[in-house]
Amino acid sequence: MFEQLKALIEDENRVITAGIDEKYYSDHLGHIKVKPAAVVIVASTDEVSKVLDFANLHHIPVVPRGAGTGLTGGTVPTEDSIVIDLTKLNRIQHLDKETMTLTVQAGVLLEEVQAFAESNGLFYPPDPGEKASTIGGNISTNAGGMRAVKYGVTRDYVRSIEVVLANGSIVELGSKNIKDSTGLDLKDLLIGSEGTLGIITEAKLRLIPKPQIARSVLVPFQTLEEGIDTVLDIKASGVDVAAIEFVQKEAISLSEQYLKIEFPTHKGNAYLIFTFDGDTASHVRDNYEKVRELCYQHNALDFLVLEDEESFEITWQIRGAIVKAVESVSVQEPIDIVVPINKSAEFVKYTKAISNRHQVAIQSFGHAGDGNVHLCIIKGTLKEEEWQEKLQLVLEDLYQKAAELGGLPSGEHGIGLTKLKYYLDYANEVQITLMRNLKKAFDVNQILNPNKAY
Amino acid sequence: MFEQLKALIEDENRVITAGIDEKYYSDHLGHIKVKPAAVVIVASTDEVSKVLDFANLHHIPVVPRGAGTGLTGGTVPTEDSIVIDLTKLNRIQHLDKETMTLTVQAGVLLEEVQAFAESNGLFYPPDPGEKASTIGGNISTNAGGMRAVKYGVTRDYVRSIEVVLANGSIVELGSKNIKDSTGLDLKDLLIGSEGTLGIITEAKLRLIPKPQIARSVLVPFQTLEEGIDTVLDIKASGVDVAAIEFVQKEAISLSEQYLKIEFPTHKGNAYLIFTFDGDTASHVRDNYEKVRELCYQHNALDFLVLEDEESFEITWQIRGAIVKAVESVSVQEPIDIVVPINKSAEFVKYTKAISNRHQVAIQSFGHAGDGNVHLCIIKGTLKEEEWQEKLQLVLEDLYQKAAELGGLPSGEHGIGLTKLKYYLDYANEVQITLMRNLKKAFDVNQILNPNKAY
Repeated sequence: MFEQLKALIEDENRVITAGIDEKYYSDHLGHIKVKPAAVVIVASTDEVSKVLDFANLHHIPVVPRGAGTGLTGGTVPTEDSIVIDLTKLNRIQHLDKETMTLTVQAGVLLEEVQAFAESNGLFYPPDPGEKASTIGGNISTNAGGMRAVKYGVTRDYVRSIEVVLANGSIVELGSKNIKDSTGLDLKDLLIGSEGTLGIITEAKLRLIPKPQIARSVLVPFQTLEEGIDTVLDIKASGVDVAAIEFVQKEAISLSEQYLKIEFPTHKGNAYLIFTFDGDTASHVRDNYEKVRELCYQHNALDFLVLEDEESFEITWQIRGAIVKAVESVSVQEPIDIVVPINKSAEFVKYTKAISNRHQVAIQSFGHAGDGNVHLCIIKGTLKEEEWQEKLQLVLEDLYQKAAELGGLPSGEHGIGLTKLKYYLDYANEVQITLMRNLKKAFDVNQILNPNKAY
Repeated sequence: MFEQLKALIEDENRVITAGIDEKYYSDHLGHIKVKPAAVVIVASTDEVSKVLDFANLHHIPVVPRGAGTGLTGGTVPTEDSIVIDLTKLNRIQHLDKETMTLTVQAGVLLEEVQAFAESNGLFYPPDPGEKASTIGGNISTNAGGMRAVKYGVTRDYVRSIEVVLANGSIVELGSKNIKDSTGLDLKDLLIGSEGTLGIITEAKLRLIPKPQIARSVLVPFQTLEEGIDTVLDIKASGVDVAAIEFVQKEAISLSEQYLKIEFPTHKGNAYLIFTFDGDTASHVRDNYEKVRELCYQHNALDFLVLEDEESFEITWQIRGAIVKAVESVSVQEPIDIVVPINKSAEFVKYTKAISNRHQVAIQSFGHAGDGNVHLCIIKGTLKEEEWQEKLQLVLEDLYQKAAELGGLPSGEHGIGLTKLKYYLDYANEVQITLMRNLKKAFDVNQILNPNKAY
C-alpha cells in the first residue's frame, strides 16, 4: 500500500519503506523506539497535503517530525504510521521589514531564524535551549526558553501559521494584523498542539527591533532558596530583566568537567544568572543596579557583571551544557514542571527531599523567572530494574507535588508520550473531554500523532 | 416553561418573563432590538450552571450579557432566548500579590479592575475606551484599547477563566502558571469567542508593577498621511511607547463642541497622541525625544509634551469622547477594521475616497500603533431609506478594501451580529467550517449565543 505514496511525491526516493534510518524511531528522548511503516521526506506543503489526504483515506496514522530534538517522545511513531519528515521545508521565504514579519518554512532551524533576524537589525526573542530545533517544532510545543521573563514564549511571536489539516486541506490561521477579534482563535489552538490537530508547514513570525545592548550578571548564593526568594522581589519591583536562570553548584561542576572550562566564580552553592537588555547602557545599568540591591538584601555572596566577552561566553556555555554534561555520565529523565512562581522555592526544596527519600540523584536548574523548573533525574550506577522502579516513584511524587502546588507537567517541552500518564492523573476530566472532542472535530479519523499530548 | 427557571434561582424576582427592561433588547448598537423570552439575573456561577443545564435540556438559546456596552449586537437576543445578565457577579475576589494575579467575577467593570490594581501599586494594562464595560465582556471580545502598542490586548492579561459550558459543567481553563505547554490551549480559544462556546463567570487576571511615570505627547501634522507614515518609523526604531493614537481635526472639533472644552492646539489637520511610560523620568524622556526627532522628519508642526495635568486631561477627554460627540449630533455606524500596520495610511486614504464617492460623512480615528482604524459612518441629514442604501454601499466597499489589504473586520470589538455578513463574505471557508465544527464540539445543541461571530 505504501507504494502508492511514491506516486504522490516528486522524487520517489523520498518515500522510504525499507531500511528506515533509526533516527526516525524516536526523538532526543531515545529510550522509546518504534519503527514506523514508512517515512516521507516532504519538499513542499503540497506534498504534505497529498500524504495526509492519502493517509486519511486509508486511516493510516501520521506522525510529523522536525529535527527530532524533542524530549518527550512527541515524534515517536507507531508501527503502522507514516512519519512525515519536514526538515527539507527549510527556506527562509520573506522578510517584511515594515510589519517586521518573517515568513519561514516549518523546517527552518531556530538558530537560523535568530541569526537571520539579527543580521537584519531585528530580533526573534524566543530562545529555547536547543537552537538546532525546527521552528515548526517550537510552535508545536509552544517552546519557551531563557528570555520568556521579558519577552514571552513562542506563542507570542507567531503572527500566522500555514497548516495542513488531517483531510489534506491547507489553511492559514492568523494574519499579519496586530490585533484580531475576528472569529475563534484557531491559531493559538494549533500552537502547542503537538501535531495532533494539523501539520504546520509555514509560519509568519513577529520580529521586534534588536535591543542594542545586552548584559549578563552572575550572582552566587549560599543556598538555592535564597536565590529563588530574591526572584519574587525582582518581579514585584518591575525591573526590566530579560532572563533569570537558576542553577546549582553540582550541575555547574558537571558542566565544567564536561566542557573543560571554568565557571567565573566558585563562591556559594547556587547561582542566579540574569540578562538585561535595552537600547542604552544607562537603561541596562539602572536595571541591574536595582537587582544588585535586591540580591544583596537576600544575602548574595557576590554580583558579577559579565562585561568581558570571555566570562559571558563561559557562563552561558556552562549553563547551556548541563543536560549534555549529565547525559555524558549517565542516563537521565528530563523534567519540565512549571509551578506558580511563588511556589518555585517550595518545589525545588521538595525535589531534594525526594532525592533523599528515594536515594536517586536529581539535578535541578531552570527558568527561575517563570517557575519553570527543569530536573535531570539521574540513573547513575543503578541497575536497570532498580532505576525503573525508583524512577516511577520519583515521578509520581514529583507530579503529585506539582499538582498540589497548582503546577503543570510541562512549561515548554510539551506532554508528548512520556508525560501523558502523569498529566492525565491530575488533569480535569472536563478539560480532557473538551480536548478530545476538539481533536475529533479537526481529525475525524484520528490519524494525527495518535496517543500523544492529551 | 420559564416558570421552572424560578425554582433554580435563589430569588425568583431575578427571573423575569414579563415586563422585561428594554435594555435587554440590544446593546450600545441600539438599532437592532429583539425582546427575549426571559432574563435571568444570576448571582453565582452555580446559577449560571443551573440555567444552562435547563436551557440545554430544552434546547433554548442562551445569550450572555454584561454591561451591554458592545458595539456589534453581540448580546442582541433571539425571541425564544434566555438572556443571562452577569452584572451581579461583581466581586473583586482575591489579589495574590506574589504572583500578581487578581481574581474577579465576570461582572466587575474594567474601571474597577484598573482602579483596584492601581490602588495596590499594580497595573492592569488593557485600556479599552469603554471603562464601564465588564471584564467578562472584555474577555469575550478580546478587547484591545489604547495601550496595546506596548502591552498587548486583553488576551495577554488573562491567566485563567472559569467557564460554564453549554451542558452546565463548570471548568477552569488556564492557571496561575506563567508558562504552559500542557494540552490544548482552550483558554485562548474561549477568549474572544463572544459567548458562543461557554459563559465566562470568573477570571484570574495578570497584573504587572505599575509604571511610575507616564507622559503624553500631542503632535499636529498638516495631513493624516504624514502622521500615520511616522508611525512605521517609530515602530522600527524600537522606541518604548505605550500608546499611539491618531485623530483628525474634524473629529476633534465635534468633540470640543460636545464637551465645551478646547484642544491644546489648533495647528494642522491631524494629530498623533502618544503615551510613554516607565519607571524613571529619564527613560520616558529619552524615548519621547527619539519620537520628537522622527516626527519632525515627517513634517510635524509641533511637539507638545503634555506636562501639565490640565492639557493632559483635556487631550484624552477629547479623544475619548469622539464617538459620543458624533452620536450627539447624528446616528452613526461604528467600524473596527484592522489592517497590517503598513497599510493603515492607504486604508484611511481610501475611506476619504469612499466618503466622497458615496457622499456620506466618515470620521476616522483610532489606534495608529496597531493598524486598528475606527470609523464613524455618519447619517447626518440623510433620510432613513437613503442612509440604509448608502451605508450598505459604504460598508461593502470598506470591507472589500480591508480584505484586499489583508485586514480583518474586527480588531477589538468582535464580530457580533452586525459584522457577520461582511466577515463571511471574505473569510476562508476552511476556517469557518473549523470554527463551526468546534462550536458543535463545545455546544452540541447549539444553544449559546446563536448566529453570532462566525
